[in-house]
Amino acid sequence: MEKRIAILPGDGVGKEVSRGAVTILQAVAELFGHKFQCVYGEIGGAAIDEYGTPLPEHTLDLCKASDAVLLGAVGGPKWDRMPGHIRPEKGLLKIRKELGLYANVRPVQYYSSISGVSPLRKEVVEGADMVVVRELTGGLYFGKPSERTVQKGEASVVDTLFYQKNEMERVIRYAFELAATRKGKVTSVDKANVLESSRMWRETAEEIAKEFPDVKLEHMLVDNAAMQLIKNPRQFDVMVTENMFGDILSDEASVLTGSLGMLPSASVSVQGPYLYEPIHGSAPDIAGMNAANPIAMILSAAMMLRMSFGMEEEAEAVENAVKQVLESGSRTRDIAVTGSFPVTTEQMAEEIKAAL
Amino acid sequence: MEKRIAILPGDGVGKEVSRGAVTILQAVAELFGHKFQCVYGEIGGAAIDEYGTPLPEHTLDLCKASDAVLLGAVGGPKWDRMPGHIRPEKGLLKIRKELGLYANVRPVQYYSSISGVSPLRKEVVEGADMVVVRELTGGLYFGKPSERTVQKGEASVVDTLFYQKNEMERVIRYAFELAATRKGKVTSVDKANVLESSRMWRETAEEIAKEFPDVKLEHMLVDNAAMQLIKNPRQFDVMVTENMFGDILSDEASVLTGSLGMLPSASVSVQGPYLYEPIHGSAPDIAGMNAANPIAMILSAAMMLRMSFGMEEEAEAVENAVKQVLESGSRTRDIAVTGSFPVTTEQMAEEIKAAL
Ligand SMILES: CC(C)[C@H](C(=O)O)[C@@H](O)C(=O)O
Ligand SMILES: CC(C)[C@H](C(=O)O)[C@@H](O)C(=O)O
Repeated sequence: MEKRIAILPGDGVGKEVSRGAVTILQAVAELFGHKFQCVYGEIGGAAIDEYGTPLPEHTLDLCKASDAVLLGAVGGPKWDRMPGHIRPEKGLLKIRKELGLYANVRPVQYYSSISGVSPLRKEVVEGADMVVVRELTGGLYFGKPSERTVQKGEASVVDTLFYQKNEMERVIRYAFELAATRKGKVTSVDKANVLESSRMWRETAEEIAKEFPDVKLEHMLVDNAAMQLIKNPRQFDVMVTENMFGDILSDEASVLTGSLGMLPSASVSVQGPYLYEPIHGSAPDIAGMNAANPIAMILSAAMMLRMSFGMEEEAEAVENAVKQVLESGSRTRDIAVTGSFPVTTEQMAEEIKAAL
Repeated sequence: MEKRIAILPGDGVGKEVSRGAVTILQAVAELFGHKFQCVYGEIGGAAIDEYGTPLPEHTLDLCKASDAVLLGAVGGPKWDRMPGHIRPEKGLLKIRKELGLYANVRPVQYYSSISGVSPLRKEVVEGADMVVVRELTGGLYFGKPSERTVQKGEASVVDTLFYQKNEMERVIRYAFELAATRKGKVTSVDKANVLESSRMWRETAEEIAKEFPDVKLEHMLVDNAAMQLIKNPRQFDVMVTENMFGDILSDEASVLTGSLGMLPSASVSVQGPYLYEPIHGSAPDIAGMNAANPIAMILSAAMMLRMSFGMEEEAEAVENAVKQVLESGSRTRDIAVTGSFPVTTEQMAEEIKAAL
């Protein structure tokens, strides 16, 4: 097959881990007889520096004309004092909105090969294997007004949590479809005892559940979910929730594995390219040091092979190569055991390539 | 001293743990020569059943005419299908608003005597000792509009995150005052890379910090905070955040101890009585079984002795009695080790009384 992939390395370690992923994609192409055309674009701080905006039109066009988008990470202290609308994060929010990436899909597993890295006790976390599905283009992230006001002579501020019911439906339906291919359980997370939007969310989940008689639906309040994720992570299969709750809970869920450097994500749309990115950020503290873990990015590429290109065998080959290298004891800094000598970003990618 | 305490047992295990706390308060009164007049009121489901409303006026009057309020828990499946405005939780939200309880204070510690109960590895959690200060009367919980609408022919819903700057100031100032009496560090949690309200929150924290040159201020994004709480809980002293983030993070922080049944809270106001309550809910599954852990409620009463009555010595006596009983090996069901025989709610309260 021939595929065109938009690579947006972004900032900080995004650049390094992108190189790692491209190394692996090239190896997959050779092994399986595909042709991957990688085209590069700027986003985030890198785009601000060059074009004065975190998501230039030509980057967006490049993505729209590609079969999939692979994104590194955006942000860094250099751009932290910029005004709201030209901050690197705005590039990320804008690309999500422009490409209609309504669901962010984050698988989280416990890897026994790096068990020492999880802060949870082994008895609690062993066997955990879940996916967080987060609504990505609505809620507090995009609602208007979002502004300062003066009310009764007092400085005030407002943000708006807005949803259309059909935005809830499509992401919840996606979660059910996913659960049907897994353990058959959806945990829908909301704050229905306080928020009107959550009450609509809960009703919508009930309605969608009727389309999937073989999938079990459970509701959980967000405060309880934040506890249950840590106390009893094995109870979960697919968790689905709105944008802000999903931001918090999916990052929290990452502690089950122990390192952000291990965790990939996919963002899906109704039509047009999906976007794949590691869940870690640009990690300014280790950027440029060849120390970042490229596995999250490489596993994101594997998700792309599976979900955008239907290359199940290729995706599994990459995932198995990662497992094999971890079992061999190779570790980047974030997952190293005390006393061992960590490998570099490049070495890790090369070892995974060799294992392929 | 003579004090009048409003006791609102509420629903489910709230009734049982309230009795436990009153037992201890009576013992303290005798031992230290005080007089505590306990007056009882209804709230939550109990109030709905009797008066058709989750917070009757006379309950509110009773609270306002008391020196402090001790609340059990509200809610239960019986009232789950009631319309929004007469649900038990509304009683809780209303009493917070009516008494002006702007800051909810939740200390979370690791107890080595019940170390096996925490899902975290001992090396990670040992020594953790923090307080979460949550804004309690603003944000998404009270902002208007909070309603369903139709937008462009589509069913939609909106909730509103609204804050006055002075609401931010007072709760952040409270956190700094508290940190000054502890380890001298405030972690202010927000989502300043997305929300305008969080950007105002961050600026306000910077301003208040100037009043406290000896307290260190650190900002943390809420998604990162959800991770850091589990990965490295010892880094925190006082965490302060807005209402919804605080709801999620304070419940999450409870996993450090391992059982909700251990954790007290205080809610403070500018003037008028403070309110004290365990952070656990009404636990319908074990209600009426004499199985709930009364420690959270008893430690809430200890916080009341200290914070509302200035009875430091008395508060410490209660806290030490709790520690002693835990060290002796007595356990309610939630903190029992496998194989041991759990004590009842009443027995636990009696043992703590005896240890006094
Ligand atoms: C950078 C930030 C705007 C973003 C978000 O909050 O969505 C990030 O935390 C994420 O989860 O991808
Ligand atoms: C019962 C509910 C309304 C309440 C809240 O969200 O504040 C509870 O979760 C709490 O934290 O006290």
